[in-house]
Amino acid sequence: MTSPPPERIAVIGLGLVGTSVAMAAGRAGIAVRGWDPQPGAAAVAAERAGVEVVPDLGSAVGEAEIVVVCAPIVALGTAVAEALAAAPAAVVTDTGSVKEAVVADVSRRARAEAIPRFVPGHPMGGSERSGPQHASPSVVDGIVWVVAPTERTDPRATERVEAFVAAVGARAVRLTPGRHDRLVAFVSHLPQVASSALMDLAAVEEADEPEILLLAAGGFRDLTRLAASDPSLWAEILVANRDRIDTALGLYVERLQRLRDRIVAADGEAVAATFANAKRARLGLAAKPQVRAGVAVLQVEVPDVPGALASLTITLGDGGVNIEDLQIVHSPEGGRGTVHLTVAAGEAEHASSVLEAADYDPVRLA
Amino acid sequence: MTSPPPERIAVIGLGLVGTSVAMAAGRAGIAVRGWDPQPGAAAVAAERAGVEVVPDLGSAVGEAEIVVVCAPIVALGTAVAEALAAAPAAVVTDTGSVKEAVVADVSRRARAEAIPRFVPGHPMGGSERSGPQHASPSVVDGIVWVVAPTERTDPRATERVEAFVAAVGARAVRLTPGRHDRLVAFVSHLPQVASSALMDLAAVEEADEPEILLLAAGGFRDLTRLAASDPSLWAEILVANRDRIDTALGLYVERLQRLRDRIVAADGEAVAATFANAKRARLGLAAKPQVRAGVAVLQVEVPDVPGALASLTITLGDGGVNIEDLQIVHSPEGGRGTVHLTVAAGEAEHASSVLEAADYDPVRLA
Repeated sequence: MTSPPPERIAVIGLGLVGTSVAMAAGRAGIAVRGWDPQPGAAAVAAERAGVEVVPDLGSAVGEAEIVVVCAPIVALGTAVAEALAAAPAAVVTDTGSVKEAVVADVSRRARAEAIPRFVPGHPMGGSERSGPQHASPSVVDGIVWVVAPTERTDPRATERVEAFVAAVGARAVRLTPGRHDRLVAFVSHLPQVASSALMDLAAVEEADEPEILLLAAGGFRDLTRLAASDPSLWAEILVANRDRIDTALGLYVERLQRLRDRIVAADGEAVAATFANAKRARLGLAAKPQVRAGVAVLQVEVPDVPGALASLTITLGDGGVNIEDLQIVHSPEGGRGTVHLTVAAGEAEHASSVLEAADYDPVRLA
Repeated sequence: MTSPPPERIAVIGLGLVGTSVAMAAGRAGIAVRGWDPQPGAAAVAAERAGVEVVPDLGSAVGEAEIVVVCAPIVALGTAVAEALAAAPAAVVTDTGSVKEAVVADVSRRARAEAIPRFVPGHPMGGSERSGPQHASPSVVDGIVWVVAPTERTDPRATERVEAFVAAVGARAVRLTPGRHDRLVAFVSHLPQVASSALMDLAAVEEADEPEILLLAAGGFRDLTRLAASDPSLWAEILVANRDRIDTALGLYVERLQRLRDRIVAADGEAVAATFANAKRARLGLAAKPQVRAGVAVLQVEVPDVPGALASLTITLGDGGVNIEDLQIVHSPEGGRGTVHLTVAAGEAEHASSVLEAADYDPVRLA
């Protein structure tokens, strides 16, 4: 990447993602102008993020080197085309969760000569909250930010977006729009469908079996956490990526059917073999994208009393250990005070020593 | 429950569950004798749990009022029948994860007149670890312990087991063996299959698409955490409960297919309606069995730096708040420092005040 980061950008759409990107850009010394069709959101973003809010899209993008369009998926095509027209020298990027549908929409709406300046993007961060009042630069800290140029995208435009992504503290990963959509279908969209379907099934069963959720322990809770996400947002994403979801969901159902056949045939060995493959892969999976392939997971038992987690986290903080992630985990069938700590792999030994010195008994899992 | 708790019990099988039960019983002032076919396990249990370990099953159960059999599923029938024969006055219970298969096995192996003294059971606790060296009385603290008498079980025997369960600190929930097996198929066994199948699918895709797991954020990780469980243990459980799994998995696949059809038909409204049902049910789901219907979940943002969790947990500990559960949560597509705190519902207001006084901004989710 030879491009310098931009000095001035515009953010179109000041919801959670747009305002967070604006804040991260401001932190990096980049001047930001913003616009949102809802004056209320714009006012909050202005106050919270120090964004210079302007009354229309045209004034926002006027002097921007890069325009970041953070609109809902159905509005992205129009907003990107408008930004390309209003800022004839700027690079325009978007933050939508699917890419091929947005690319097609922009192609229909923008003038052909403007298309090379459009660089499709997808910051893989966010929050269950929404709205600029919950924005924070930490939304983009260290996340994977997919940059997805097409064959028509100017390579210099792509490099400029990548320089911007690096400047705000995220990690640019280049994929074609098709690969992006195919991969997120498996690791983001399919898990959402699997989670909501399981929770919906249990809720229907609960009508006949009120005790069912009483028996639902940590494992069930892990599987259904995503089911609490925003229904309309997700319906929009899934429909926009429907061909890829069709494939991924088809393969998933096939796999479930095969396991079902083996279980019904009492072929425990075949079931255990598939489960062993899955276990190996899971232990190799990173805990946090930005330190992937460089993390360690330590298991620590803690008593279930007030202050127990405080003691643990004080011990680690005093020892200078940065906790990448901490989860109270549960066995397949119960709950108790077992904590999984994720730390950078290079810190694992130090973290273990710190814990052992304080009479914890850490076990390295991965 | 009019039965007093027992004064003497025997534990057959001194792995993680057996040793933990022995420790919890010892804590309650109950005398415990133990036996395990593996002398190594028995020695660890003796040292760690203070169990009086004896050289054979007969001497273990001799004076016991209740015998708790904690063997692997395939060995349960034989061990229960042996215990019933060796201790003609004792009540015998087991801890297997499925119940109908065990009941059938015991019926084949035990003398008919002994059957009323067998009370099938299932403590819904455990740990990813195994072996007596990781046992702890906290494994059974506050968990749901299913007591599953058949029509042939003596009601007084059932009451004696329930009194024992209460004495060790767990919560007895009475279900028939069939209902137990049906319910755990949905909330325990099906999640395990769904999780392992998803992880296995992603691992196979990774061969062609090495970047796929780079894009796997918090949601995928939640869905696949169970995939790290013991493959052989689970294969055994699933095969033993295969008829119920067949039904539950069939309903799950049907639901996935219906969602797939609606997504492919671009019927976003129908998808959103199903997701909204699931969201409602998920928000109503308890975080921890023993405080079910009595918990609150608070969402708190924390910076991603060393000591941040320590500050949060110190604040709560100083305020006398018992953290029922704490998780660093992730949005469907990213990771950052958002913490979900679970506290008893009666403590939620107090916890919020404590946090606000320390300049946190808690949001009550459920």
